[in-house]
Amino acid sequence: MSPRPAFTPPDPNYAARVAASFARQGIMGLLGARITRIEPGLCEIRLPYRPDLSQQHGYFHAGVTSTIADSAGGYAGFTLFPSDSAVLTVEFKINLLAPADGDLLIAVGQVIRAGRTLTVCQFDVEVEKAGKRSVCAHGLQTLITVAGRPEA
Amino acid sequence: MSPRPAFTPPDPNYAARVAASFARQGIMGLLGARITRIEPGLCEIRLPYRPDLSQQHGYFHAGVTSTIADSAGGYAGFTLFPSDSAVLTVEFKINLLAPADGDLLIAVGQVIRAGRTLTVCQFDVEVEKAGKRSVCAHGLQTLITVAGRPEA
Amino acid sequence: MSPRPAFTPPDPNYAARVAASFARQGIMGLLGARITRIEPGLCEIRLPYRPDLSQQHGYFHAGVTSTIADSAGGYAGFTLFPSDSAVLTVEFKINLLAPADGDLLIAVGQVIRAGRTLTVCQFDVEVEKAGKRSVCAHGLQTLITVAGRPEA
Amino acid sequence: MSPRPAFTPPDPNYAARVAASFARQGIMGLLGARITRIEPGLCEIRLPYRPDLSQQHGYFHAGVTSTIADSAGGYAGFTLFPSDSAVLTVEFKINLLAPADGDLLIAVGQVIRAGRTLTVCQFDVEVEKAGKRSVCAHGLQTLITVAGRPEA
Repeated sequence: MSPRPAFTPPDPNYAARVAASFARQGIMGLLGARITRIEPGLCEIRLPYRPDLSQQHGYFHAGVTSTIADSAGGYAGFTLFPSDSAVLTVEFKINLLAPADGDLLIAVGQVIRAGRTLTVCQFDVEVEKAGKRSVCAHGLQTLITVAGRPEA
Repeated sequence: MSPRPAFTPPDPNYAARVAASFARQGIMGLLGARITRIEPGLCEIRLPYRPDLSQQHGYFHAGVTSTIADSAGGYAGFTLFPSDSAVLTVEFKINLLAPADGDLLIAVGQVIRAGRTLTVCQFDVEVEKAGKRSVCAHGLQTLITVAGRPEA
Repeated sequence: MSPRPAFTPPDPNYAARVAASFARQGIMGLLGARITRIEPGLCEIRLPYRPDLSQQHGYFHAGVTSTIADSAGGYAGFTLFPSDSAVLTVEFKINLLAPADGDLLIAVGQVIRAGRTLTVCQFDVEVEKAGKRSVCAHGLQTLITVAGRPEA
Repeated sequence: MSPRPAFTPPDPNYAARVAASFARQGIMGLLGARITRIEPGLCEIRLPYRPDLSQQHGYFHAGVTSTIADSAGGYAGFTLFPSDSAVLTVEFKINLLAPADGDLLIAVGQVIRAGRTLTVCQFDVEVEKAGKRSVCAHGLQTLITVAGRPEA
């Protein structure tokens, strides 16, 4: 819980590059997720509830939570990548801290270490129910920069 | 990679109980996933490819892979739970070993330790492309038994 | 990286209870680690460098980093446990963000969710070299409260 | 729990290279651990119990278990690395499946995916008590090959 480092993206056009890549993630359209904040080293994704996003008790499925958390972390990292590179998730770990019971899911991914090859992010997911937010998941993710392969 | 322990489910009706719970996971219908194998301590879930399950390069999204892996692990554990209990994922970690490039995703969850409160599973995900299978993800998951709360 | 929640320990005597338990961890004496800060939901452990704590390049071994991080997280959680309970680590995940190259290792564990059965902590590890600190590891940990079994 | 892939090490001298690197890990001498099996993609490390390796209940400390598991995984991977490279742990996750209560700890690391940059291993740890072995931990680890930097 140290203060977040300040990052200078090598590509000033990072936001457009993220938006173009995100638009190609078919699953984001299927789920109904959208990026609501993009800054150097940070990405926020929001997803409104629908019954077809649920697990067996009617809450957001842990996999759905993971999906937007993984993309939030991935794009947080991607804001700091050179323009001719792509991003892939190496691995992530997520703790489901409380049932994701609510009408809106908000995932924030943040870079905690930016490297030439590997970038490490953490993500926090909150759920909003009747206007009140609470934490429902927290995770840690490793990304790899695939050089010489622009995303678009 | 020790041999898998042999398990005796406390509820002989475990397969029907898993099927009923799975049918209530709205996200499985949205993705098009189905259970193709259920045994004490084991669950296999298959998911055919569609463009709206993709990440930015057209492969299955890591979150989609995680979603069926999480359910495969969760139901592998649930086969060993008492009939009056529910299952929740505490946390999981997944390594995306290779791009999930193919037309079918096959996730197998297996219990490696069954406890009264906590159950630990591992999951392997393979992708099939033109009839050839290869490993694309591997993970480790902790589940909790919520006693006195039947799933249905 | 949300602000840390404020915690009220159920046992006002938590610091003495932590100190007594820590004193029984034989490995802490062997390594030369000591607790340098204890607060509700937080524990800091410091460990000076010695060549016999090293990995093959002479840095602190990742396992040594993990050992004090695991104890820092465990005792952060334990500050919030009832007096007649014990703490066990269910699992943890650690990212080694940079080589632990320095003369002092400082691990801070902090509770991010305190539950009746499960408690989730994160830990940050910094290494100090010639008076300058830098982050070398970050992780996420799940603890279980073992009720009715006082540590001492 | 698929069968382990067969590996051909690029450096036929891998066992001597592992032994030389292991000998430089100061912590292994301090703990009293030694390599008892080394094969392409596999490494076994054993550690006899001593009170100064314990956590607060007298079992092997989770950090000690993690330390030999991390080295077992690291050297399993290192058997498959080119001779002019070094190995570093990127991250690992470990589930402590049962208290490590016994007189001998046996960690086996095995490669599940060998890549040019990243290698993924799993590790199993067993504890032996009065001649009877039982599983006490399982984990998953990501390694990075640092090229052009021989370990010795």
